[in-house]
Amino acid sequence: MIFSTVGKMLCAEALMLLLPALVGVYYRENCVVPILLSAAVALAAGLLTALLSRPGTNVIFAREGFCIVALAWIALSAVGALPFVISREIPRYVDAFFETASGFTTTGASILTDVEAMSHGLLFWRSFTHWVGGMGILVFVLAIVPSVSERSIHILRAEMPGPIVGKLVPRSRDTASLLYKIYISMTILEILLLLAGGMPPFESVIHAFGTAGTGGFGAKASSIAGYNPYLQWVITVFMCLFGVNFNLYYLLLLRKFRDVLHSTELMVYGAIILLSASLITVNILPIYQNTETSIRLAAFQVASIITTTGYSTANFDLWPTFSKAIIVILMFVGACAGSTGGGMKVSRVVILAKTVQQELKRLCHPRSVNTLRFEGKPLDETTTRSVLTYLTTYLFCFVIVLLVLCLEQTDFVTNFTAAASCFNNIGPGLSLVGPMANYAHYSDLSKIVLAFSMLLGRLEIFPLLIFFSPEVWLQKNR
Amino acid sequence: MIFSTVGKMLCAEALMLLLPALVGVYYRENCVVPILLSAAVALAAGLLTALLSRPGTNVIFAREGFCIVALAWIALSAVGALPFVISREIPRYVDAFFETASGFTTTGASILTDVEAMSHGLLFWRSFTHWVGGMGILVFVLAIVPSVSERSIHILRAEMPGPIVGKLVPRSRDTASLLYKIYISMTILEILLLLAGGMPPFESVIHAFGTAGTGGFGAKASSIAGYNPYLQWVITVFMCLFGVNFNLYYLLLLRKFRDVLHSTELMVYGAIILLSASLITVNILPIYQNTETSIRLAAFQVASIITTTGYSTANFDLWPTFSKAIIVILMFVGACAGSTGGGMKVSRVVILAKTVQQELKRLCHPRSVNTLRFEGKPLDETTTRSVLTYLTTYLFCFVIVLLVLCLEQTDFVTNFTAAASCFNNIGPGLSLVGPMANYAHYSDLSKIVLAFSMLLGRLEIFPLLIFFSPEVWLQKNR
Repeated sequence: MIFSTVGKMLCAEALMLLLPALVGVYYRENCVVPILLSAAVALAAGLLTALLSRPGTNVIFAREGFCIVALAWIALSAVGALPFVISREIPRYVDAFFETASGFTTTGASILTDVEAMSHGLLFWRSFTHWVGGMGILVFVLAIVPSVSERSIHILRAEMPGPIVGKLVPRSRDTASLLYKIYISMTILEILLLLAGGMPPFESVIHAFGTAGTGGFGAKASSIAGYNPYLQWVITVFMCLFGVNFNLYYLLLLRKFRDVLHSTELMVYGAIILLSASLITVNILPIYQNTETSIRLAAFQVASIITTTGYSTANFDLWPTFSKAIIVILMFVGACAGSTGGGMKVSRVVILAKTVQQELKRLCHPRSVNTLRFEGKPLDETTTRSVLTYLTTYLFCFVIVLLVLCLEQTDFVTNFTAAASCFNNIGPGLSLVGPMANYAHYSDLSKIVLAFSMLLGRLEIFPLLIFFSPEVWLQKNR
Repeated sequence: MIFSTVGKMLCAEALMLLLPALVGVYYRENCVVPILLSAAVALAAGLLTALLSRPGTNVIFAREGFCIVALAWIALSAVGALPFVISREIPRYVDAFFETASGFTTTGASILTDVEAMSHGLLFWRSFTHWVGGMGILVFVLAIVPSVSERSIHILRAEMPGPIVGKLVPRSRDTASLLYKIYISMTILEILLLLAGGMPPFESVIHAFGTAGTGGFGAKASSIAGYNPYLQWVITVFMCLFGVNFNLYYLLLLRKFRDVLHSTELMVYGAIILLSASLITVNILPIYQNTETSIRLAAFQVASIITTTGYSTANFDLWPTFSKAIIVILMFVGACAGSTGGGMKVSRVVILAKTVQQELKRLCHPRSVNTLRFEGKPLDETTTRSVLTYLTTYLFCFVIVLLVLCLEQTDFVTNFTAAASCFNNIGPGLSLVGPMANYAHYSDLSKIVLAFSMLLGRLEIFPLLIFFSPEVWLQKNR
C-alpha cells in the first residue's frame, strides 16, 4: 500500500520533469537530455515500485499515512536531484540532494555559489520544486490521481502544516482540488503583476514559484535586491498572502467575510508583521538615512522571514543586533497554519501563549476553572497538550541538529542560524549562511543533516520520526 | 502578612551583615563602617516594615507565598547592595544591585573589572550572599525564625527549585533545619579539603561558599585557573555534589541506599556529566596535547556549567564550536531539582523527553494507553502538563529578555549567552561575557533586565510573574 502510493508519486514526478525540459528546449540548452533521462528513471522507478507492491488492504491508518508522507518526500528529493548531477551543473550528488530537498521542502537554502551560471531549464526545475512542494506533493497527487479517495484524509492530515486541519469539504479530493485552484490563481496573479512591473517573463515565473511555495530560490545571487521598489512591494504582499491559512481564502470564496475578520490567527499574524517591521524600520533608519527605503527593506525582510520564504533585498547580516534578533525570533514563529509556510506556526504560538496565561491564572486562583478559547471555540486538553508536546519535540530535534552541525569549525551564530533556517524551511541565516552567502562550505555530513532537518520541519517532525523509529520497521517484518 | 515576613527577613539580613564586618575588622579594612551602616539600614527598614504591617490573617495562600518570595529577594538584593555603594568599592547603585542580585540568586555574573582590588570584608559578603541564597533565604529564615510554622509550606514550595517537592518530614521547619544541617556539613567538609590542598583559609571559605550555593563568585579574576589540580578536582566533585537533589542526602541519612541508587534523575544527571565531559575531552585534546589536563578541564567545566556554578579553569570561549555548543546546551539543562542549582533541572528534561516518547507511541498506536513513569511512580497529567507549560513560559521569558538585551550593540552570541547565563543562574557566557570577561560593558537597562532575569530564573519564573501581574495589585487595593 505504502509503496504503491509512493510509486504513483514518482510517476507524477516524471511528468513534472517534462515542464523544465520544455523550458530547456525553448532556450536551446544542453540540460534537456539530462532532464528527460531523469524523467525516464523516475518513471521506471515509479512503475517498478507500484507494480512490485501488493495491493493489500486499502485502509490507511495514521501510521501508514505518516510513512507514505516521509518516504514520498525522501524519494522525490532523491530522484529530483538526478537532473543536476547528470547535467554536471551540480556535480556532487550530496549537493544536488541538498538543493532538491531544499526545493521540495520550500526551504530555499542553496549550495550554489554562482546561480547565474545555471541553465534556464534547471533553474526552472529548481523553482518548480518549490511550487510543487509548497502545496504539498500529496495534495497534488490527490488532486490528479483519482484512485485515492476518502480514506486519504490521513495523508492529508500528516501533510497539512499546523495544529488544526479543518475538513473544508467532505471529500478530501475536493478539498485538495479546491486549495489547488486557489493556489494556481494566486500564482498567476502574481506573475501578471510582476510582468506589469517590468520583470522579464522567465524571472517572473521563477519568483512567483518561489513566493507561492514560500521557498526562496531566485534567479540571481542578489535575490530580489536588484529589482525596482514596485516589484519588491508586489513580492512583499504576495509573501504575506501565501503565509495566510488557505482555509480563509475558502471562506472568502463563500463570502463569509465576518469569519475571516474574526480569525485570531490572522490578526496575530498581521500584528506581528506590523510590529516587527516597525521596530526594524526604526532600528535600521540610521543606516539607510531614508524612510521609504527603510520601511520597504524592513517590510520585505519581515514578510520574507515570517512566511519562511527567505528572499532578501538587503544584507540583513549587517543590520544592528536588535533587528537580527527579531529576524531570528521570527524564524521560529513561522507563518499561519494551513499555509505553505514553515516554522512553529502562528496558531501554535498563540495557543502556547494562552496556555501560559491560563497557568498564571490557575496559580493565583487554584480553584477557579477557566477554559481556553481559540478562534471562537474552546480548546480541549488534547489540542493544547499536543501543541505543548510539539514544542518540546521541536526543541529536542533542534538541539540534536545543532549539535551535529557544531562539529564544523564554523562559528556558533552560523551553525545556530543554519539549523534554525533549515529546520524552519526559510533559507538564509546569519554570518556565513547570511543572505549573501550560501551553504557550500558545509561538509557532506552537515549537508545531509540539514537536508534531513528541512524534511523534519516541513513534515511537522512526527511523520519522519515515526518513519525512522525501529518499532515501525520491526512490525513490518512480521 | 506579606510585609511582616519580609520585614523579618530584612532584620535577618542585618544580622548576616555582621559576619563580613567581623572579617573587615580582622583585616583592619575601611569597609567595616559602611557594612555596619548598611546593617543598621537593614534593621531599621526591617523593623519599620514589620511594625507598620497589620498582622491580619495568618493563613498563607499560594498567591501570598509567591508574593513574599518575590518581594523578599528584591528587598534583600536592594538592601544588600548598600555596603558596596557606601564603601565606594562599587560606586554606582545599579552595578551594586546587579552584583548583589547575582549573589543572592547564586548566579555569579559580575560587573567587577578588578576583583583583586576589593576588600576582604566585601569579598566575603559577596560570596556569603551565594551561600545564603543557595539554600534559599526563606529556608534560612524558616530555620531560625520560630514564629513561622506549618503554613509556611507554601513559601517553601515557591522557593524549592524543581517540579517535585517531597515533603521530607511533616513540619516544614524540621525539613528546613535538616536541609540546612546537611548543607552546612558539606560546606565545612569542602573548606577542610581545600585547606588540606594548600588553599589560603580566606579563599577556601570564599570558594566553598561559591560552590555550595552553585554561585561562582571567586576571589580572583582568573577564577579557579590558578590553583593546583587537586584543588580543581575537589571543587569539581563538590560542584557535582551540590547539584544533586538534597532529598537524596536525606535518604542517605536514613540508610535507604537502594532508593538513592534507583533515582532516575541522579542516573541521568551522572550520565549527562560523563557523556558531556568525554565529548569535550576528545574535542579539546588537540589544543592541550595532554590527556590529564583535557579530562580535568572538561570535567571541571561540565560540572561548573550543569550545576550552574560558573567557575572556570580555562577560557572555554576559545574552545572549538562543538564544545561551546555542549556548554550552551548544558546551561539550559541545569542541575537536579531540589538542589541549589538553577536551569531547567534534569528531572524536567527527563519528563519532557518521556512525554515526547509517549506522543510518538500514541501516534503509532492511537488506541493504546501507556502511562508515564518517573522515579518509579506514575506521572499524572497535571505534572507533565505543568512541566510542559513551564518550558513554554521559560521560552517566552527568555525571548523577551534576549530582545531587550539585543538593543545593545554587542554581538548576538554575547547577548544570547548573557541572557542564558543570567536566566539559568550560571555566571559566565561566551564572547564578551566569556569566563575571562564580565558584564561591566552593559548599559543600566540591560543590567536591570539581567538582574531581573536572574530572579526570574532563580524563583522558577512564576512567583515573579505573579508578583508583577496587575491582577494581584488591583485586588490588594480593594
